[in-house]
Amino acid sequence: MNLPFPFPVVRWTGQSVRLIDQTRLPGELVFRDCTTVDQLCAAIRELAVRGAPAIGVAAAFGMVLANHRGEPLDEARARLAATRPTAVNLFWALERMAQVADPDGLLAEAEAIMAEDLAMGRAMGEAGQALLPDPCTVLTHCNAGGLATAGYGTALGVVYAAHEAGKRITVFADETRPLLQGARLTAWELQARGIPVTVLPDVAAATVLRQGRVDAVITGADRIAANGDVANKIGTYPLAALAARHGVPFYVAVPSSTIDPATASGDSIPIEERDPDEVHRFGGERFTPEGVAAHNPAFDVTPAELVAAIVTEDGVHRPPYRFASA
Amino acid sequence: MNLPFPFPVVRWTGQSVRLIDQTRLPGELVFRDCTTVDQLCAAIRELAVRGAPAIGVAAAFGMVLANHRGEPLDEARARLAATRPTAVNLFWALERMAQVADPDGLLAEAEAIMAEDLAMGRAMGEAGQALLPDPCTVLTHCNAGGLATAGYGTALGVVYAAHEAGKRITVFADETRPLLQGARLTAWELQARGIPVTVLPDVAAATVLRQGRVDAVITGADRIAANGDVANKIGTYPLAALAARHGVPFYVAVPSSTIDPATASGDSIPIEERDPDEVHRFGGERFTPEGVAAHNPAFDVTPAELVAAIVTEDGVHRPPYRFASA
Repeated sequence: MNLPFPFPVVRWTGQSVRLIDQTRLPGELVFRDCTTVDQLCAAIRELAVRGAPAIGVAAAFGMVLANHRGEPLDEARARLAATRPTAVNLFWALERMAQVADPDGLLAEAEAIMAEDLAMGRAMGEAGQALLPDPCTVLTHCNAGGLATAGYGTALGVVYAAHEAGKRITVFADETRPLLQGARLTAWELQARGIPVTVLPDVAAATVLRQGRVDAVITGADRIAANGDVANKIGTYPLAALAARHGVPFYVAVPSSTIDPATASGDSIPIEERDPDEVHRFGGERFTPEGVAAHNPAFDVTPAELVAAIVTEDGVHRPPYRFASA
Repeated sequence: MNLPFPFPVVRWTGQSVRLIDQTRLPGELVFRDCTTVDQLCAAIRELAVRGAPAIGVAAAFGMVLANHRGEPLDEARARLAATRPTAVNLFWALERMAQVADPDGLLAEAEAIMAEDLAMGRAMGEAGQALLPDPCTVLTHCNAGGLATAGYGTALGVVYAAHEAGKRITVFADETRPLLQGARLTAWELQARGIPVTVLPDVAAATVLRQGRVDAVITGADRIAANGDVANKIGTYPLAALAARHGVPFYVAVPSSTIDPATASGDSIPIEERDPDEVHRFGGERFTPEGVAAHNPAFDVTPAELVAAIVTEDGVHRPPYRFASA
């Protein structure tokens, strides 16, 4: 694995948006070049690029691509905004790009969004790692790593910062059904960084928490409401509830662009319902009987009362959470 | 689907123990003939037959097979007892078979164990369905159905009895990673019985509970301790904890042979750790990177305080639970 770190998750090549195709990991490291906005929208929908901060960066470069191809910018922005409903970073990044008056400034703005995300990853990692003991076992859900961001990570950014600070850190990675981002992506990038990782079925997390084998649970988020309610990958809410039950702190690490003061509480966060085939099938094979229904909500909402701290590039926020517009 | 109900999960053919091969469902309905005790032990280990009551019935017929082939009965019993550590019905059935003095009486005893399990299924179904409103949505985990028993079911026996009583009942079936018994087996048998079923990722159960879409959670069990602690498929404990959090009753339906008064509490129930490859792979394909570890406990323990009622063929038991030897 000769990939540099921070990972080159999204790049502008001069004529295409180049993504690490995360649907192919960990089996193959393949880059996907999106040469039209429609190709990039498809890549976002298919989760070739996923993770709230990474989607924001990809959408920003999507506007660069639209300008490069001479596509109407308003239309391109609308199509990119319609790809995924929950992650607020997507809308935040598109809004920033919309504020750029001179189209020649779009590339610089997209590069700035990417650079800021990397810097925020390092800053939140540093703030978050101070919360962790040494040695430390962290449990995480889904992939809130370098691959979910411009390259450094949110929840895993905290792990990387602890590792870089010399702490002996190990990770339990929930496999994260239905799309196994934990088993595929979190395990892959932790292994690449030399950090011991053990994958487990999502529902086995409750037992390792009960057994006192976890010092902290850390996840990322797709949107945080003004009151601190957290929308994140389906399975985060039961994990936070079990962590609270066993006195294990549940932390959320996000760039401040994931906090949406315009959303009062989790009740008003739209939750994406994805294709039931993600539940019916895996690796092509169908596991449920034909004709049976499946329910596939992509996210759930963790009430703020279960969140011990929210870590951003600004530092560690403690409850009660009252996020206001800057 | 022309399979009769109760399902012919285990049968003695006169020279073999014939099982529905549950590893092939729902794709194919295939019967597996075990003509040696070793073949039957392999079938139990590979989960071709699984579910605590069904394992007990299969082991009883295994002793018939050993006698038919002239194998030493003590050795056969020891090999059958060593197949799975958690389900107490296995040891209970083998102990009953050991009490049969005349080898010619083994077949009658095994048939009696099977017939009693069917009768217990109907009795606990009747007792349990009285707990359910009409209409009713039940959420269940793993497969505690006809396929897990002599043919009628424990948790799904309650569902079948409610259906037979004319109640409008629908089911959410947790898919049940890693081996997808919910997606494969529970969905299959509910569909076969004409009961509406929706499969969902295990961790999505928390959200449908939170949304008030579930009237009762019902599971089976592999062993219940004297104090009411419940060992069952990994994922049962977090489900029970979330049900309690949302005021939804969590019921366990078992034949009384699943209750082990000799086990004081859940702390002394041995938990089987299964092959990590069940987590690494999905339908043959490996999803985790090579070299990464996986943790695969087959069961977890739900503390009695989370169990609203334990339903057996004797009726509905309410806390505090104090099970004593008969």
